Amino acid sequence: MNARSPVEFYFDFSSPYSYIASEWVEAVAARHGRTVRWHAILLGATFQAAELKSPVSYPVKREYALVDFQRSARFEGVPYRLPEPFPIPTQNAARVFWWLADRDPARAAAWAHAGLRAYFTRGVALDVPAQLKALCAEAGLDADAAEAAWGDPVWKAKLKAENDAAIAAGLFGAPSFIVDGELFWGNDRRGQLERWLASGPF
Amino acid sequence: MNARSPVEFYFDFSSPYSYIASEWVEAVAARHGRTVRWHAILLGATFQAAELKSPVSYPVKREYALVDFQRSARFEGVPYRLPEPFPIPTQNAARVFWWLADRDPARAAAWAHAGLRAYFTRGVALDVPAQLKALCAEAGLDADAAEAAWGDPVWKAKLKAENDAAIAAGLFGAPSFIVDGELFWGNDRRGQLERWLASGPF
Repeated sequence: MNARSPVEFYFDFSSPYSYIASEWVEAVAARHGRTVRWHAILLGATFQAAELKSPVSYPVKREYALVDFQRSARFEGVPYRLPEPFPIPTQNAARVFWWLADRDPARAAAWAHAGLRAYFTRGVALDVPAQLKALCAEAGLDADAAEAAWGDPVWKAKLKAENDAAIAAGLFGAPSFIVDGELFWGNDRRGQLERWLASGPF
Repeated sequence: MNARSPVEFYFDFSSPYSYIASEWVEAVAARHGRTVRWHAILLGATFQAAELKSPVSYPVKREYALVDFQRSARFEGVPYRLPEPFPIPTQNAARVFWWLADRDPARAAAWAHAGLRAYFTRGVALDVPAQLKALCAEAGLDADAAEAAWGDPVWKAKLKAENDAAIAAGLFGAPSFIVDGELFWGNDRRGQLERWLASGPF
């Protein structure tokens, strides 16, 4: 098989649909001979760039979204519990991701899973430094080094650059997928993404 | 088989995802022993009620949406061509729908198909009275009576009442589906809707 470009997977640690997609994206990619390249982004920044707001900031949409998060998780067979508070700022978790990704993308992906699962199944508050640090330790990271990383201007700048790159690529929400240059937005584009991976452009 | 509640299907004549869903909803419902009850609504009114704006009013989202409309149509095997102008006001087409629905729901559903297909495959401007009238004639309606209906306060009031009822039911976009009291929003909820129809709540 020829080397095929990876599935570029963009997620935010506070996005339920990102979490759900994170649980199927690797298996789907692998089934079609692709790997996944993970990208932690901040939805807030993409919303701002596109002059959008979070769907849950609209009362009517929020009510539906809370039902749909849960139903969509059950539909994909993914354990899920609405965390409280929700949503939360996730820049520290995202900076830890990029700090890891720089040296070891597989380790960064494992951290992505750890963070998303902790928030969306156990309500671990990734925005509370003590809880984030404890989760780093639980995930086998050097918690002090992780804490230093999320406060380090280098990883702040890296996250900002990655966000800017995502926005420049046309992203405005998460999860998003780019495959062979084609952008798919939303956990609910799984079917289209799978068809693309199976048989190319349609 | 017991009588089962119909699939309540809410659409706007100017919504591409409504058009795509309108092409599969009857077959999907029938496969599970259900009928479809069609509801013409005005997306603008639901957006206003929820303080939302059309996705295509955001430049970044519009660019993606135009690609996704086309890709989603191909994904479902539905012929589609982006009409110009898009979107358009659809209150007249919707009032003709409710005028017909009052006497003959099947005829109203046929009109829904005729209007959606005319706009999304041939660019017939449903907001231009002469074009709408010609389409009514083509669809086998009494075009003069249809024109009288869309100007009649009775059908204006009926459309408004149906819109208000949809908003009261929690709707904020189209297409939307209500099955057994459960709300599903979007053409991309087809999978979840089918699972619900096949085996009930999940």
